[in-house]
Amino acid sequence: LSRGGSIDVNFKPICLNVEPLRNFTEKVFERLGVPEEDARITADVLIEADLRGFDCHGVSRLFPTYTRIRKGLIETKPKIDITWVTPTTGCCDGGNGLGMVVGHRAMQACLSRAAEFGTAFLSVSRSNHFGIAGYYSSMALAENMIGITMTNASPRVVPTGGTTGILGTNPISVAVPRRTKPPFILDMATSAVSSGKLDVAVRKGGDVPEGWVYPSVKPFLDEEGVVPMSVLHRPLGGKVETGGYKGYGLGLLVDILCGPLSGAHSGSRLSASKREVEANIGHFFGAMKVAGFRPRDDFDRDFELLVEEVKASPREPGVEEIFIPGEPEALAKQKNRNGKVPVLPQIWKKLQQIAVDLNLPLSG
Amino acid sequence: LSRGGSIDVNFKPICLNVEPLRNFTEKVFERLGVPEEDARITADVLIEADLRGFDCHGVSRLFPTYTRIRKGLIETKPKIDITWVTPTTGCCDGGNGLGMVVGHRAMQACLSRAAEFGTAFLSVSRSNHFGIAGYYSSMALAENMIGITMTNASPRVVPTGGTTGILGTNPISVAVPRRTKPPFILDMATSAVSSGKLDVAVRKGGDVPEGWVYPSVKPFLDEEGVVPMSVLHRPLGGKVETGGYKGYGLGLLVDILCGPLSGAHSGSRLSASKREVEANIGHFFGAMKVAGFRPRDDFDRDFELLVEEVKASPREPGVEEIFIPGEPEALAKQKNRNGKVPVLPQIWKKLQQIAVDLNLPLSG
Repeated sequence: LSRGGSIDVNFKPICLNVEPLRNFTEKVFERLGVPEEDARITADVLIEADLRGFDCHGVSRLFPTYTRIRKGLIETKPKIDITWVTPTTGCCDGGNGLGMVVGHRAMQACLSRAAEFGTAFLSVSRSNHFGIAGYYSSMALAENMIGITMTNASPRVVPTGGTTGILGTNPISVAVPRRTKPPFILDMATSAVSSGKLDVAVRKGGDVPEGWVYPSVKPFLDEEGVVPMSVLHRPLGGKVETGGYKGYGLGLLVDILCGPLSGAHSGSRLSASKREVEANIGHFFGAMKVAGFRPRDDFDRDFELLVEEVKASPREPGVEEIFIPGEPEALAKQKNRNGKVPVLPQIWKKLQQIAVDLNLPLSG
Repeated sequence: LSRGGSIDVNFKPICLNVEPLRNFTEKVFERLGVPEEDARITADVLIEADLRGFDCHGVSRLFPTYTRIRKGLIETKPKIDITWVTPTTGCCDGGNGLGMVVGHRAMQACLSRAAEFGTAFLSVSRSNHFGIAGYYSSMALAENMIGITMTNASPRVVPTGGTTGILGTNPISVAVPRRTKPPFILDMATSAVSSGKLDVAVRKGGDVPEGWVYPSVKPFLDEEGVVPMSVLHRPLGGKVETGGYKGYGLGLLVDILCGPLSGAHSGSRLSASKREVEANIGHFFGAMKVAGFRPRDDFDRDFELLVEEVKASPREPGVEEIFIPGEPEALAKQKNRNGKVPVLPQIWKKLQQIAVDLNLPLSG
């Protein structure tokens, strides 16, 4: 591996045209037996991740998902069962469907309910990897609602004081509508660093910041160009003295809301998503009407004042702009839209393999 | 200041009996014109903070609150106005009352609503410092609900890339009921370190961990023995490369939900709480029925499995026990209950001053 801070040539991304990639992804799912509308949704979630710059959750996830479907580990026509236990809370049995399909259905149900009652929340069991959490929270924006999304994930984060990976990187996303663009979209792993960002840093060679991995070892890549699950993460905040117990607390909260509150797996049982059994990943979705708290115009005015103050604040040397959450991703999307997204050569090879398997055309 | 890691003799806490302290605190508020029941609530919030070990939010807050009431900056008989805009969302005008009284009233209203509709949320404006966020989230536990509490606070946290304090330490608390004791109570500042913990560390002398304050200067104490507001905090995660943008994102989210969503101040306008004008601090409260998602017994069983796994995980050398959020505070409370709580000599002097002013008996 190179140590110079620039990406090793083996990990230099190639650029693919977005729309052909989207069509290919849709066709792959259709060919596997996923209904047309569900294939469209699944492809949209993956492509949106690439557009926003979350490469690790984009088409790089197509091959592992494809493989699990072919092995019969994910249902292509799931029976998704939503039960509202109270007017605003309920549970969703995802029927072991694609996480993107289950997530889209559950969030949509929350939005419909919240339109009537002001808020609505669903805990979800029997789902699979659903891509970026921010996709679903963002669905609330067009409805003038605040969207909330969480998911648990395969164990690789150590609890504060522990030495083994029990929690996933368990992300939290909250999207808040704004009068002007871009909206506020917080989409963060509760670990110090997301798996995807760790991969990118390791591909650049050199050391990763203190507090990312546990113990403080030098992380490495496997033959796919990703850091294997055996490399453990610290929670957000890093070590105990720098507040790591807070990230651990947030990660555990996500696991409680997604696991015990839904019936999905939690803790180390989530390693099922890496084995040849049903993953039973859990999610948590919520929606709240902005105008259910305060007239929208008043909210908009005061929200803009706050954003303006943050963005206008004096900057550190070398910092060109202070961003609000979601702004870097909106800029990435603007840059990528109608154009190309970066994909690792390793991923490109896998996509070509799928194209051959299914006899589908794929252009770069 | 001593540098040896042990508390300087000037900051060596003295131990006060809890019940006389509680009675004194109640009497102080009654004497200032606060109705009996509200005085009882306010004293309970302050004493509960001391019992849980959040000294900085306990009776140490009595003198500044007392002073603001005497100056007419806080209403002792506020008109607290709760409006439900939808069945489950609404706003609360705190009438510039004591934060503890406003917070208790608002959370109580959420619990009543959630009993009917499954969930309920209130954004709160025109309030004041309310003590520990965990007090209000914990109120949900007896109702078998998940409790959520946030508040904004005086600006002293820098946004990632910025150099000035725009956000408060903006805490988030989420309490989740458990079949066994203690319950899960996450109660965390979204800054790398809470103001109270920073004070304690500085009193011990020596350096504070990298990533706590901005810039990386040596923090100091004022004559009251606390670190002045001019010492800025970094968000949870510290610098940008260790994930500080996530803590900043969480802190900004808290400010959005407490400020623009309620009509309270936000950003640097919250410095009003340090000046001789109405503070207009904002809060956000929520409650969700556990059984609104899944039968309570199923939730309890799976939650226990998760907690057991976390607590049974292999530990780092020197770590005696892995705690879940709320457990250290429950242990502190057990130790302090029916007994004594530690109070700084500086605070004890202030309490004596109040006793003289109001001609109230005060025993140590």
